[in-house]
Order: sequence, then C-alpha cells, then structure tokens
Amino acid sequence: MFEARMLQGNLLKKLVEALKELVSEVNFDVNSGGISLQAMDSSHVCLVAFTLHSDGFEHFRCDRPLNMGIHIGNLSKVLKCAGNEDVITLKADDNGDTLTLMFESQKQDRISDFDLKLMSIESEHLGIPDQDYSAEVKMPSGEYQRICRDLASIGDTVQINATKEGVKFTTSGDVGTANITLRHNATTEKPEEQTFIELNDPVSLTFALRYLNNFAKATPLAPVVKIGLTKDLPIVVEYQIGEMGHIKYFLAPKIDEEENMGDEEAS
Amino acid sequence: MFEARMLQGNLLKKLVEALKELVSEVNFDVNSGGISLQAMDSSHVCLVAFTLHSDGFEHFRCDRPLNMGIHIGNLSKVLKCAGNEDVITLKADDNGDTLTLMFESQKQDRISDFDLKLMSIESEHLGIPDQDYSAEVKMPSGEYQRICRDLASIGDTVQINATKEGVKFTTSGDVGTANITLRHNATTEKPEEQTFIELNDPVSLTFALRYLNNFAKATPLAPVVKIGLTKDLPIVVEYQIGEMGHIKYFLAPKIDEEENMGDEEAS
Amino acid sequence: MFEARMLQGNLLKKLVEALKELVSEVNFDVNSGGISLQAMDSSHVCLVAFTLHSDGFEHFRCDRPLNMGIHIGNLSKVLKCAGNEDVITLKADDNGDTLTLMFESQKQDRISDFDLKLMSIESEHLGIPDQDYSAEVKMPSGEYQRICRDLASIGDTVQINATKEGVKFTTSGDVGTANITLRHNATTEKPEEQTFIELNDPVSLTFALRYLNNFAKATPLAPVVKIGLTKDLPIVVEYQIGEMGHIKYFLAPKIDEEENMGDEEAS
Repeated sequence: MFEARMLQGNLLKKLVEALKELVSEVNFDVNSGGISLQAMDSSHVCLVAFTLHSDGFEHFRCDRPLNMGIHIGNLSKVLKCAGNEDVITLKADDNGDTLTLMFESQKQDRISDFDLKLMSIESEHLGIPDQDYSAEVKMPSGEYQRICRDLASIGDTVQINATKEGVKFTTSGDVGTANITLRHNATTEKPEEQTFIELNDPVSLTFALRYLNNFAKATPLAPVVKIGLTKDLPIVVEYQIGEMGHIKYFLAPKIDEEENMGDEEAS
Repeated sequence: MFEARMLQGNLLKKLVEALKELVSEVNFDVNSGGISLQAMDSSHVCLVAFTLHSDGFEHFRCDRPLNMGIHIGNLSKVLKCAGNEDVITLKADDNGDTLTLMFESQKQDRISDFDLKLMSIESEHLGIPDQDYSAEVKMPSGEYQRICRDLASIGDTVQINATKEGVKFTTSGDVGTANITLRHNATTEKPEEQTFIELNDPVSLTFALRYLNNFAKATPLAPVVKIGLTKDLPIVVEYQIGEMGHIKYFLAPKIDEEENMGDEEAS
Repeated sequence: MFEARMLQGNLLKKLVEALKELVSEVNFDVNSGGISLQAMDSSHVCLVAFTLHSDGFEHFRCDRPLNMGIHIGNLSKVLKCAGNEDVITLKADDNGDTLTLMFESQKQDRISDFDLKLMSIESEHLGIPDQDYSAEVKMPSGEYQRICRDLASIGDTVQINATKEGVKFTTSGDVGTANITLRHNATTEKPEEQTFIELNDPVSLTFALRYLNNFAKATPLAPVVKIGLTKDLPIVVEYQIGEMGHIKYFLAPKIDEEENMGDEEAS
C-alpha cells in the first residue's frame, strides 16, 4: 500500500505542469525513499528527472516499491481540479490499477477524490552520473525564462559562453543577431535576485532553444534556477521543488560543425 | 410608452451575458410589474427565466404591456458599449420597432444612445409551477462554477447526491472517476462563503454537465447560488440580480437507464 | 556615425507598437535634429508621421543624415526583448547595413545587444501642410480608444459632428444606430481626464472606423489625444511621445455621396 500526504498541494500541480510539455506517458517510481521519475522526452532528445523525498511529505508510507504508469495529460486534468491551497493525498494499492488523489480544501468544507487509471509503460532506467561542472550559474528563474523566450523569437539555437566576465547567450536568425550578457551580481539584497557564476573553466556550448524554453515551464516551482555547463556534456537545468526535492532537465549540446572545420571564432 | 431607468447598469450587462450562451432570439415581456423573460434554450433542452421588478428601477413606466423581440447577440454588443458605472435607461414606443438604450457616465460628460432593432418572435408561454424541493443547497456561486468546470474536464454527466452528510457531485470519463463533496458549513463569517443544505428527502439525480456549466455564466450576478433538487423533476439553479429580481435555470434530469435495468449502485 | 541613448526605452517600444499595424517596411530619417518618419499605411489610405527630437535623448549624435530602412515587425520582435525599465541605445555606422540596439537593465546586471538588418526602401517624402482646424478636441486617449472600439462593433463608418454643444460620434449597422456624445468638461481635477472642445466652425465629417481604431494603438504612449477636424480635409489624431516628440495620424474623410445628391439631413 502507498499513501502520501502533501500539505503544499500546489507543488505537485506545478511539477506536473513542468513535465507536461515534455513527456506524455511515464512511470513514477515510488519507494520508501519517496517518489521519483526519469524519462526521455517524447522526441528522445532531452531527459527530465525529479525526486520528491519521503520526508518532505506530512505523511508517507510505501510498503513495497511501485511503478505507476501515468498519462501526464490526464494527471494534469485531475490536478487542475485541486485548489492552490488544497492538501493533496495520493493513494494506491500494491496491485491496483488506479491512483487515488484526494484534495481537501483548507476549510475542510470541500473534499474531492479522483481515481486516475494507471497504465503499463515500458521503462528504461537511465543512469545519470554526477558531474562536476566547468561552469555553474545560479540566476533568477524568471530571468532564465525571459532570456530563452526572447532569444527564441530571434533564432533557433543559442550559444552559451561562460567566462569570468559573465555568461553570454547568443543567437541569430532572419531578423539579425542577439547577445544577452549576465554578470555576476551578488549585491542585491534579495538572494533570489542574485546571479552567481562559479567558473572552473571557460566553456562555450550550443543548444536548441526550443528545449531550453520548455524547461522554463518549471519556473513557477522555484525563484532560482541552477545551470551546469561542461564541455561536450549535456547542460543541466535544475529547480528546487520547495523543501521536498528537485527537478532536473538534461540536454545534449549541438555539435558545432564549423568548429570541426577549424573556424577560428568558435574556439 | 415604456421607460425604465436603472442606476446599476452593469446588472443588465451581466444579465444579458448570462443569457447569451443559451438563447439567441427571445421576447422580453414588459408590463407595469417589470421586465421578465421565459425561454427554452436553442436546443430545447433547458429553460431560462428572469424577472426584474419595476420597483427595483429608479424610474419605471409602462403604459401598456409590450412584447419586445430581441436578438440577444445584438443587445450584448450594444451593452458592451456601456461602462460598468453607467446609468442605463431603456425606452420604447408602444408600437415602435426599436428599443432605445441610453448610457450616462457618472460624470455626465459622455452620453450614448443606441437604437436596437426589435424583431417579431413567436413566443410560447411556459407555465412554471412552484415546487417544494427535496433538497435545497445554497453555496458560493464561484464554488458552483468551479465544480461544474472541473467535472466537465473529466466527464459529460454529473450525478448529484444530496444526503444529510452533504452534497456529492460524481462524474467519470476516460481519465477515471471524480467525486466532489460539499458539507453544510455555516461557520465562516461571511454569509456568501457559507454552504447551506436543507434536506427534506435524500435525492440523487443525473444531469448533462454542459448545461450546468452554461448556467454558471450568471456567476458575476451574485455571490450565492441556490440549487433546488426534487426526484424526477428539473434542477433549478437560481441567482439573485442585485435587489431587482432573479434569474432561474431549469434542466430536466437524465433518465438513468441502468436504474431501469435494476442496477443496484444507482438505487 | 549615429548614436542615440534613450532613458525611457519603453517609449520606443510603445511607438513601434503604434506603427506596427499600419506600416510594415519604412524608412526612419535620422539627422542632427532627431529621428522622424512619414509613411502611408500599407493600403495607401492613411498617413502616419512621428518625430523624436534629438534633445529628448540623453545623448544624441548623428554625423550625417541617414535613411534607415526598417522592417517594423522585426524591430518589434527585438524591442519585445527590452524590459520596460531598460535604457535603450541605438547605433549605426554611416554606411552600415545594420542598426544596433543595446538594452541595459536598471541594475546593470543584464546587457543585451541586437543587430537588426536594415533594408533598402523606396521612400516618397510627403509634404504635410500645417493647418488650422475648424474644431480641435482634446480628450483622454482611453476614451477615444473606447469610442472607436465600441462604434466599430456596431458599424463601419463614423460621422463626427463637432458643434458648440459637444462632439457627437454616430454610426449605424445591422444592429441599429449608435450615438456617443462628449461634452466639454474641464471641471475634473486631473487634466488628463478633461475634455476640451475648441470650435472655430461647426464641422461634420465621416471616416472609416477601422483606421480610427488602428490609430488607438498609440493609446499607451499618452494619456491625452488631440483630434483636429477641418471640412473636406483629413482628420489629424495626435499623441505626445513623452517629452520627446509626437506621433500623428492622418485620414481623409469619406465623401458623403448622399450629400452630393442633395440629402437634407447631411447638410
């Protein structure tokens, strides 16, 4: 039997919104440690993973590990029926084919319960190695969202350059070219408005803007986003989920063909 | 001659928005008692009726009863041109073919008048009997709107069960099943946030969600909605129109075919 | 070399939004006096002109006059990437084929620069004579926007009648007819809420609502709009652009065919 009670139900609402664009049918892995997911997006280009630790729940019980195959669109429909202030309880039997979601309003005058049909989904467990980043950037998540949205209106790919001067995002398209440069800025009073750049090695990588833009669907989850960049390795875009865990997105860099041909500018 | 002056013009704006989805061409009945309407919706499934009492107007004069055939879409267009704070005056000649609407801004610096063409519409007067309900529920109109909208995202019909424990709304669809339960709650300080359940007999009825959802277009008219339920009779959904009158919607229950076939659950 | 630095970057954003619906590719004329434009709209029915005086900029340098051919849609895309509080700097070389736009955030922690491709556009300089108006109306720009939008929902053309009683806007369509009358009103405390009517001669002119509605895209630029009316001459609709200049729209009146046929009402 599995039962988990979350006081901040809106974190689950926001988490599912952050998944919805990328994956359609996925397995949620539930065990005594909590709830987690790892999945390639539908086009098999990027990877998304989240963890909700069991001790972040008000109450958490999982007698034996479960693999719950979930249609994210349907889960999203159900969670749209939960109020932002609602307490959410998840329940499933060990061999059941439904996940029950219960929403309680603060004033206890409205209780809703939804039985969501589960599905059987082939899952591949993907080992994600820990990595040290060449450059790690912490910035306001709204700023990340805005940069991705703005650049996507100009071009399709973005080159991210991290140097000790700052992080530069560059794109170009029919309209022309665009550069947005962020500088290290720890002087503002509010920590969530600060920009931290931790640099081990300067690094320059190119990504598809469409996916970086998609990752920004997680913006409502956290005021700050952490971006990890390492030469020839996927970018990692990470948001905290309250005190309960985190969601991470991984996207491989584009191979810069010009670089292979000895282009001087790119080096 | 007919002339009526309404200080709260926005009530008329909201009333017409509450009609617009259901009826397209209808007769407004005007007599010395006020303005009223009774009409089946375009698909002849539900019925809508409103009354605006003459003593709710700042000034009201109607020399002889009038039947004004109105294109609701056009009336809505005209009323969109009235400000929310405007005073609205309606005027018509006894044998005229137009209804004049005059909008005065509070500061009296803008006066608009619109001549709306009237139409000749066949009307059937429908006797609506007064009825005692098995169950009567008063709830925040926003809560009613939300329940109908949420359930409509899951299924097409809703079963409403009123018992002494509360009112339960149940639907099901491809996603799964959903139950929302409201409890009697008169403890909150604001009367418009309370839920009252007055039960003579437990009752369970099934309705098309699409129409219940449509009735919620009247939500802006009043903070509270009153729902009347009686076995085998139409549901009545009623909103006050300020101090001036009310609008009522009627929808016949679905015959539960399974019940006829001896289904145990439905009994 | 051309370089201009604007502290209120959002004025440029709003100005381009005010042009976008009417013109698609136009020449900006830059000289030591500032930046200006004159262009017929794409359908060659109305004319739009703006001036930004050089002394309205924090810094302005223009070594020799430039004609910059700009795709307004692309410029709009680029300016959407500027924050409302950003300082905007424009730069171009004398013989260059790009306009560089630099956006600096207030906190100086984000700097963006965009190279917008310039185009070669045939331009016709249109002499716009100064004119004395028969009637000049100053009114809140939001009121002008609302009147045009409301009347456009009823009819296609508007007759504007300025007399000493006020300014009357009249239209008619399938729905019926509509009149909106504004009176001179200088009694409210806030100057931007006042309506001034300065009348030399009563005047009555008819215009296509579609264009008057389009001019209202400039509403965010200024709280007040000035309308000039003269018999048989184009209407002039003018908004200030902060302290930097103004934008003017010109639209020729419709010839009232009935008037030519001796219609009494129109005289």
